[in-house]
Amino acid sequence: MRMYDIIKKKRDGGELSTEEIKYFIGGVTDGSIPDYQISALCMAIYFRGMTVRETCDLTFAVRDSGERLDFSAIGGIRADKHSTGGVGDKTSLVVAPIVASLGVKVAKMSGRGLGHTGGTVDKLEAIEGFRTTLSEEEFIKQVNDVGLSIVGQSRQFAPADKKLYALRDVTATVDSMPLIAASIMGKKLAADDDCIVLDVKTGSGSFMKTVEKSRELARLMVDIGKNAGKKMVALITNMDRPLGNAIGNSLEVIEAVETLNGRGPEDLTEVCLTLAGYMLSLAGKGTPAKCIALAKEAILDGSALKKLMETVAAQGGDANLIADPAKFQRAKFSYAVRSTERGYICAVDTEAYGLASLALGAGRNTAEDAIDYSAGIILRKKTGDRVEQGEEIATLYANDEALFPAAAKKLLAATVVKDEVPEEEPLIYDVVE
Amino acid sequence: MRMYDIIKKKRDGGELSTEEIKYFIGGVTDGSIPDYQISALCMAIYFRGMTVRETCDLTFAVRDSGERLDFSAIGGIRADKHSTGGVGDKTSLVVAPIVASLGVKVAKMSGRGLGHTGGTVDKLEAIEGFRTTLSEEEFIKQVNDVGLSIVGQSRQFAPADKKLYALRDVTATVDSMPLIAASIMGKKLAADDDCIVLDVKTGSGSFMKTVEKSRELARLMVDIGKNAGKKMVALITNMDRPLGNAIGNSLEVIEAVETLNGRGPEDLTEVCLTLAGYMLSLAGKGTPAKCIALAKEAILDGSALKKLMETVAAQGGDANLIADPAKFQRAKFSYAVRSTERGYICAVDTEAYGLASLALGAGRNTAEDAIDYSAGIILRKKTGDRVEQGEEIATLYANDEALFPAAAKKLLAATVVKDEVPEEEPLIYDVVE
Repeated sequence: MRMYDIIKKKRDGGELSTEEIKYFIGGVTDGSIPDYQISALCMAIYFRGMTVRETCDLTFAVRDSGERLDFSAIGGIRADKHSTGGVGDKTSLVVAPIVASLGVKVAKMSGRGLGHTGGTVDKLEAIEGFRTTLSEEEFIKQVNDVGLSIVGQSRQFAPADKKLYALRDVTATVDSMPLIAASIMGKKLAADDDCIVLDVKTGSGSFMKTVEKSRELARLMVDIGKNAGKKMVALITNMDRPLGNAIGNSLEVIEAVETLNGRGPEDLTEVCLTLAGYMLSLAGKGTPAKCIALAKEAILDGSALKKLMETVAAQGGDANLIADPAKFQRAKFSYAVRSTERGYICAVDTEAYGLASLALGAGRNTAEDAIDYSAGIILRKKTGDRVEQGEEIATLYANDEALFPAAAKKLLAATVVKDEVPEEEPLIYDVVE
Repeated sequence: MRMYDIIKKKRDGGELSTEEIKYFIGGVTDGSIPDYQISALCMAIYFRGMTVRETCDLTFAVRDSGERLDFSAIGGIRADKHSTGGVGDKTSLVVAPIVASLGVKVAKMSGRGLGHTGGTVDKLEAIEGFRTTLSEEEFIKQVNDVGLSIVGQSRQFAPADKKLYALRDVTATVDSMPLIAASIMGKKLAADDDCIVLDVKTGSGSFMKTVEKSRELARLMVDIGKNAGKKMVALITNMDRPLGNAIGNSLEVIEAVETLNGRGPEDLTEVCLTLAGYMLSLAGKGTPAKCIALAKEAILDGSALKKLMETVAAQGGDANLIADPAKFQRAKFSYAVRSTERGYICAVDTEAYGLASLALGAGRNTAEDAIDYSAGIILRKKTGDRVEQGEEIATLYANDEALFPAAAKKLLAATVVKDEVPEEEPLIYDVVE
């Protein structure tokens, strides 16, 4: 088999065989295929696409390029959720405890934030003492004992994806549906869950800018997961605005705890209940509607919050912070961003909001950057809200006052105020089963 | 300027600016753009194409990536021809002396053979003593004194093309019209001719397999040359069969001398006269028809042959070999390939014929291979000819008898014999002005 022939076949619109795809990913993994051939094939795939069969093969080859987890020692049904990444997306911190409190196991491997999007692992590390690195034995024992554990990806999952993504990122080949799907699902399937709910974010703060593209990606990923024997659902949710009001690590943990106390923002609460409901439903707990009601109940009766506290304690974190989030260390300085116009916020550039938070120290430009856990933004006004001139639209938090002017400018530039009330957009566009 | 943005712009169907194309080729030349970005852009160009303006800019950037020749010290009009490469193509050895004998200067830089195609420099080196490396002063002096010199490309012309081609060759991006045109014309325009006649070969022995593709390439190259201020014509000629009957270096020199003696094969003679006629016409010697008549006369009156002898002598070669080609050293062994079928030769795989000659020692698999000048093939039957079972269709020549069986098998497999007389194909499909 020759890589040249594989490139040419795809270039000419052919369908690559399972063996050809395995050969390609094998060569990516062991370094035997040079970068220039990999990038040429990625560009050919960008133009020619891949069939579902090819995309499944690509996903499975990526999954099999490194270690895979074995969760067979975990008793009971294992469910997980995966978000394609957004701004203010703290749903895992709410959804996982709800689901675990209802008897479905959640053995969660999460990522770190990069660029405008945050990562669950960073948020958890804002809780003093919380260990995001556990041994496999500790992890599995905790899932069996507590029902929930969330750790970082310490192991070499899907190394082919790391290599491929780095090349795609510099050759304008990121934006290809089969390559995106294989990247996300290749990593996700390296874990050993029974049920997976995908949260495909759509809009200005996410990777997929249109509902159509999101629907296409969701369909593809659901099909791949089913082909791998998983129970799958994907929700297509709105990321044309940040989810909830908090952006930044400890600020988001506090908001997640508020949500588990039944006092969370409406949009965040609804997305969390829906995600939890579908996870429970896939896990055999009843219809989605019934499971959403169960999830609500787990918030109302305090069992979900209790599950989060147990989890934090089990992983060495300070559960008092969860019991009383006022104890979280606050940033030294705050700054009110005031509207220069009056009218209605009719649109925001959500990615720019994420970048403003990053500029305050809450995120990473590169994987090596350190994070300021207390930095971030609390939104006082969101899309659809009325604002007066001089009214506060957001509060910025940072430990260096010098960071405020640029972040405030970025935030204002990313906020479109007009005379008319904007049309309301759905929070959940679609459910792809 | 960032290479990423250039790749993305082309990927999305945009037109690259002159500055962007210069930046790209500059980075290819100095090595600052990594191979994986170069190959990704080549694949995007493969799918999106380029406008004539972009292709001209690309060609000029390739031309300017290395040294350029200055022929201003040559008195008179300078004309050249360039073939896209074929099997048995010894036209330069016939055309250049004809044109020079009629007072138009030919300062010719030729290539070596690779794969199934031969190269003029190799053929000339079959003439004992012939020096294909001259200093620039020697070269220009000879063109002024004799009217003709043919040397190898000793200088670093268009180094960007060398790098680009090597990458395209392994990433399935050779087959792109603007990239092909820029590669050929970028090198050609590094020389300093006034008039250029392109011989775009078409068919099984050439790079372009269809007349439509050849016409498209010819049109593009003629436009590029005109944009560079050259007088341009392209002929589209038949390479569905070898040109003439000889394949192999000294065998082809002998056939060229025969042609200059007026005893050449009909097809070779006609193509040579037409090429020479258009070169002369571009150089201001009259209409193509008149110039073709002049070229015929130069053969009949012996002046073209005399010009070749002068040239050979001036470059240190043994002119006696030209005066009496029987003196060329012959291969030790010959072998008759006999038809296993009866009927008419209705098609041949010309590339396979070239590869059979290569297998006898007449060509190179890699640029480092040595050549056996006396090895090769004389075709006794060509497309359209009647053959009987057991009749000789070709004679193979080699200095190692062990090479015959494989070459003979290759030749027979590449020869299609059928009951019907095949339709006659034109020798010259078109003239693109």
